[in-house]
Amino acid sequence: MQDTHTEVLANVRLTEREQAILRELRAIKDESGSHSPSLYTLKDRVPDLAIKVDACFLSNPYATDLFIERLTDDLLATGELRKVLEFYPSQNRHVAALLQPVLGVDADHIFVCNGAVEAIQAALHRFAGMKVAVILPTFSPYYEYLLPNQEVLFYRLSREHDFELDVDEFIEFVLRNGIDTVCLINPNNPDGGYVPTARMREMLDAFADLQLVILDESFVDFAYEDEQRTRQSLAVDAAQRSNVMLIKSMSKDFGIAGIRAGYAITSPPRVEGLVKNGYLWNISGLTEFFFRLFAEEEFQQDYVEARLRYLDEATRFFAALAEISHLHPYPTKANFCLVELATALPVEILAPLLLIRYGVYIRDCRDKIGLEDGQYVRIAGRTEHENEMMVTALREAIAECAGRA
Amino acid sequence: MQDTHTEVLANVRLTEREQAILRELRAIKDESGSHSPSLYTLKDRVPDLAIKVDACFLSNPYATDLFIERLTDDLLATGELRKVLEFYPSQNRHVAALLQPVLGVDADHIFVCNGAVEAIQAALHRFAGMKVAVILPTFSPYYEYLLPNQEVLFYRLSREHDFELDVDEFIEFVLRNGIDTVCLINPNNPDGGYVPTARMREMLDAFADLQLVILDESFVDFAYEDEQRTRQSLAVDAAQRSNVMLIKSMSKDFGIAGIRAGYAITSPPRVEGLVKNGYLWNISGLTEFFFRLFAEEEFQQDYVEARLRYLDEATRFFAALAEISHLHPYPTKANFCLVELATALPVEILAPLLLIRYGVYIRDCRDKIGLEDGQYVRIAGRTEHENEMMVTALREAIAECAGRA
Repeated sequence: MQDTHTEVLANVRLTEREQAILRELRAIKDESGSHSPSLYTLKDRVPDLAIKVDACFLSNPYATDLFIERLTDDLLATGELRKVLEFYPSQNRHVAALLQPVLGVDADHIFVCNGAVEAIQAALHRFAGMKVAVILPTFSPYYEYLLPNQEVLFYRLSREHDFELDVDEFIEFVLRNGIDTVCLINPNNPDGGYVPTARMREMLDAFADLQLVILDESFVDFAYEDEQRTRQSLAVDAAQRSNVMLIKSMSKDFGIAGIRAGYAITSPPRVEGLVKNGYLWNISGLTEFFFRLFAEEEFQQDYVEARLRYLDEATRFFAALAEISHLHPYPTKANFCLVELATALPVEILAPLLLIRYGVYIRDCRDKIGLEDGQYVRIAGRTEHENEMMVTALREAIAECAGRA
Repeated sequence: MQDTHTEVLANVRLTEREQAILRELRAIKDESGSHSPSLYTLKDRVPDLAIKVDACFLSNPYATDLFIERLTDDLLATGELRKVLEFYPSQNRHVAALLQPVLGVDADHIFVCNGAVEAIQAALHRFAGMKVAVILPTFSPYYEYLLPNQEVLFYRLSREHDFELDVDEFIEFVLRNGIDTVCLINPNNPDGGYVPTARMREMLDAFADLQLVILDESFVDFAYEDEQRTRQSLAVDAAQRSNVMLIKSMSKDFGIAGIRAGYAITSPPRVEGLVKNGYLWNISGLTEFFFRLFAEEEFQQDYVEARLRYLDEATRFFAALAEISHLHPYPTKANFCLVELATALPVEILAPLLLIRYGVYIRDCRDKIGLEDGQYVRIAGRTEHENEMMVTALREAIAECAGRA
């Protein structure tokens, strides 16, 4: 298979330097499992590669701007940064108490975490049952982190239905199979499919007797149900239902993947179990600093602007992708969209060509269970300028690939 | 009991403001479990309290200086900081590979972690057996993080033997009781007792058939066995023994508690199990930045100076404590020392008085199992100037307390 790729890529005239980069990229990808390698890893291994747009990366850059502004004013200008790095951050419960007003749920329902994956691991290892339903395609930790004695039952979304979840059919699937644990991501990653809040509540009702319902709202800030694009969240519902654990990454909407921040909302005994048994000092000083900003009204107001600006630009970008020949973007309510490539446009050619020649890094989805037989890429919205660069790069690369395939 | 304290404290003439602070401190301590509340928590809850020296905090401030210098040059001056906070850090294995040369063990033995407590939790939950030996006094997570079906067997160090571990007796204790898991901290926290490397190797040999031997070397940079004060570590031994898991916090010796950084050295299958099942992106961008410095020869050379300077000053400070009446410091090879107070000097008076009136925060050890019946405090070495402030404050506070008790 690798040989075929190299030959076809040779048709699109890769230079020797480009071919060497391609070989190294394939080796790195083989080592990274079901995730894309980080920018730093790529830089170490392929110093020759110039990445101009990282569209694997699901993150609002305008929110990063906002965070950096406040970090500059509050920590750098004041010299306070040293303390944040030198001293121990506060314990989990203290930070949870700061979040109570902004999340609208009592502090004893809030578990603060070092990135959402920490909560995913804890939920699957400590609270999940023996039969776990996972909707495909998905974020791979939901099945990779299961213990050997836990069984996973996959429910597949289909391209024929635009990867939309049929809520009634899924409820029926869960009840029919004696499933005790359900993992829901809304909007879903990697397809961006969204189940409106009213329908989500129907599911929570139908699953009221299950042992655990994980509800991952990591992309919820990019979804909306009205013209004002109001942010929706089931945080209050999660706090009211003792079998629900809502998980939220802050990396995407707040643009701070490097600091590792997230929270979970679940029942007080579960929160207490986590805090008393292992997760007392799990967050860093900078994560505590971020959560203090997050709890601040002024920061939230500034964030609304960053959120709406990014949403506007992403929406226009996804519309522009639909105009490009050979690309079929699926409906999305997230900050990325899943794009199917026409048969004439082999993904194993387009993705590396975009990266090596145009510096545009998109997510080849062949390693995602549920998408492995198709020609899918996931492309995130970035800044307006970067979105324009991507559209140009895609048009040129596609013209070259498709012309020769 | 609380009333008695208040009365006696009234004898040392607390002002009303000081008494109010004292009440709030007691409430916070009740909420913080077996750990001292962080500086940030204290600042939120008792804004009126001015902490001048935090000697609860076990950390080399000269190493913090070094880290801040490099952060300033490499991340702030270059504008690189934004990338470190915005983008995902590298995966665990990639950072482990950077550490291979400096740790002198193969990368597949190295697990990089978000502070040592993350590795402690993982070790106890995933690799420990059913009967766990913990030496008292200890760092409380070693028994607090055990699962309900794990039994803890405490082995008590005694003040009569200066809290020194009798290696032969402990080996006999472990073998006689059918223990399958042993937790060793060397130097030990909170007493600073040290078992020389040759004796530690005897223990590892004696425990070769156990399921797990945890060896916590978080304070090893402050111990030494020769006049040059060379750093000792059993890293290579740990990599050679499949039942050993060496755990190392970077917070203390490198003065960076706020960024959360640590590593473990254990067998490749254990490392692989952790990385594949939950701990893929556990560290932050700043932790990755720190580990890149740590792997650098120049940084290690600069660190040796910071380490030796701090060691010198701490040694002089502990000697000065021994000169103060009513204080009995125990022998230590760590950056703190355990101090027993004379009966005439009630710890429940001295500790809050030092904090409220002198801004000196020391660790009251009454909540530590194994020390709860005595009058112990743990005092860390800080900068030379802070050490001098502490000596003065201790002399004055002791004169006042002891004079009236």
